Amino acid sequence: MSVEEILKTHRRPPVAELAVLVRCIDECSTCEASCTVCADACLAEDDVRDLVRCIRLCLDCADACDDTLRILSRQTDPDLSTQRTALEACLAACRACAEECERHAHHHEHCRLSAEECRRCERACEDLLAVFPAAGQ
Amino acid sequence: MSVEEILKTHRRPPVAELAVLVRCIDECSTCEASCTVCADACLAEDDVRDLVRCIRLCLDCADACDDTLRILSRQTDPDLSTQRTALEACLAACRACAEECERHAHHHEHCRLSAEECRRCERACEDLLAVFPAAGQ
Amino acid sequence: MSVEEILKTHRRPPVAELAVLVRCIDECSTCEASCTVCADACLAEDDVRDLVRCIRLCLDCADACDDTLRILSRQTDPDLSTQRTALEACLAACRACAEECERHAHHHEHCRLSAEECRRCERACEDLLAVFPAAGQ
Amino acid sequence: MSVEEILKTHRRPPVAELAVLVRCIDECSTCEASCTVCADACLAEDDVRDLVRCIRLCLDCADACDDTLRILSRQTDPDLSTQRTALEACLAACRACAEECERHAHHHEHCRLSAEECRRCERACEDLLAVFPAAGQ
Repeated sequence: MSVEEILKTHRRPPVAELAVLVRCIDECSTCEASCTVCADACLAEDDVRDLVRCIRLCLDCADACDDTLRILSRQTDPDLSTQRTALEACLAACRACAEECERHAHHHEHCRLSAEECRRCERACEDLLAVFPAAGQ
Repeated sequence: MSVEEILKTHRRPPVAELAVLVRCIDECSTCEASCTVCADACLAEDDVRDLVRCIRLCLDCADACDDTLRILSRQTDPDLSTQRTALEACLAACRACAEECERHAHHHEHCRLSAEECRRCERACEDLLAVFPAAGQ
Repeated sequence: MSVEEILKTHRRPPVAELAVLVRCIDECSTCEASCTVCADACLAEDDVRDLVRCIRLCLDCADACDDTLRILSRQTDPDLSTQRTALEACLAACRACAEECERHAHHHEHCRLSAEECRRCERACEDLLAVFPAAGQ
Repeated sequence: MSVEEILKTHRRPPVAELAVLVRCIDECSTCEASCTVCADACLAEDDVRDLVRCIRLCLDCADACDDTLRILSRQTDPDLSTQRTALEACLAACRACAEECERHAHHHEHCRLSAEECRRCERACEDLLAVFPAAGQ
């Protein structure tokens, strides 16, 4: 089942263009999982001491993604400031995590994959912010 | 990107057969999102008073799914009792939520879809429990 | 045990003045619980249809508080932009939730208590933002 | 504000004896924070390679505690099997984490404190399970 399928059955209109909203929720969901795996895969590496910042930012990113996918999944009586700032926080967490994972991408395949997913989620957040209604609306 | 792709890059072997583990993580992820949407879509219905138990169990199920997908995503030095009891708790939450959503499935399409997803996640938890190593191993 | 006690044993200096940081983590923790209870207590009220926005914003606020308490609890190699935007998102969620809970405070004691806790958490976020290092540091 | 104060305003009776329920929610909340700090404090230690299992189990324990505090905070139309299995999963996560943290308690003060908190949370889960209504009730 897809998030799009169930969101279409909601009585309230989506808080933003459905396709853009759905892509952001889906990327947050995938990014939470891939950052959780990357943090744990880093713990199992011999050079874990060089991966401390990567682990830490992966944990932050997983938490931010989970928070944001939940807040964005709700369409009933939203507060636009709550939703917009959650998106901005998720974007910042994805960007910081991607930058650090990229530094280890040539050593560790999980860092390369995690960096790619963080960049996809970062873009999905940017795209949603670009079509998001202003807080006064 | 898929969870399977990044799990395959982990230095440690998966805690259980990869395909069964991955399906359970994926269903937990989908079920967290669909239960979050269903709880919120119920809030927007005119008969919200009849949906109170459905909302409550959807919230429980989303929380249990998120906990379980995180614990199962970690392959490094697992504690089998922690993982097995998380799976059992997720299975119980999915089953209770599915039973309640099914009672509203003929009225509300989101309840029908959420019930179906809860049943898929319940089966994925059962299948993983069936191949899970015993706690003493 | 207090969060302050364990944070003091961390090898790295706190990301901001310890007392202000600890108060924010503690308020996020309390606010997550009180918003979770208030959302659920609203579901049990006869006038649940009038409380739909309150429930929704309590769920958002609980999610934002949990995300923020985790990100702020980590002192190792922080990314200041990730931490600052999480704080801003938590502040926005607390403010929106407090405003809505205050509208129901004269009917429902749980809304009055939840509103008060959201305001305390909002202030704790503001106070921490005021002493937080700039992202360039 | 205390969780007890807001739970007392709920229209529904608590799912179990209030004082025992409240202590369990409070310990889950404290244990989530202390395990999050301990995992991060371990990352900052020179002997992080010896602390990999401790970090991993602290992350599991924080996730289980958060799930359980949310599920236990809800008193409206509970499913006893969902609540009981969440409690059992939290107990298992606390016990496994405590055992591992205790192994490092003489080196690292954060492990000693985290172990103590995990044991308190384990006992609070046991005490609540002891007074919890049977699933058939």
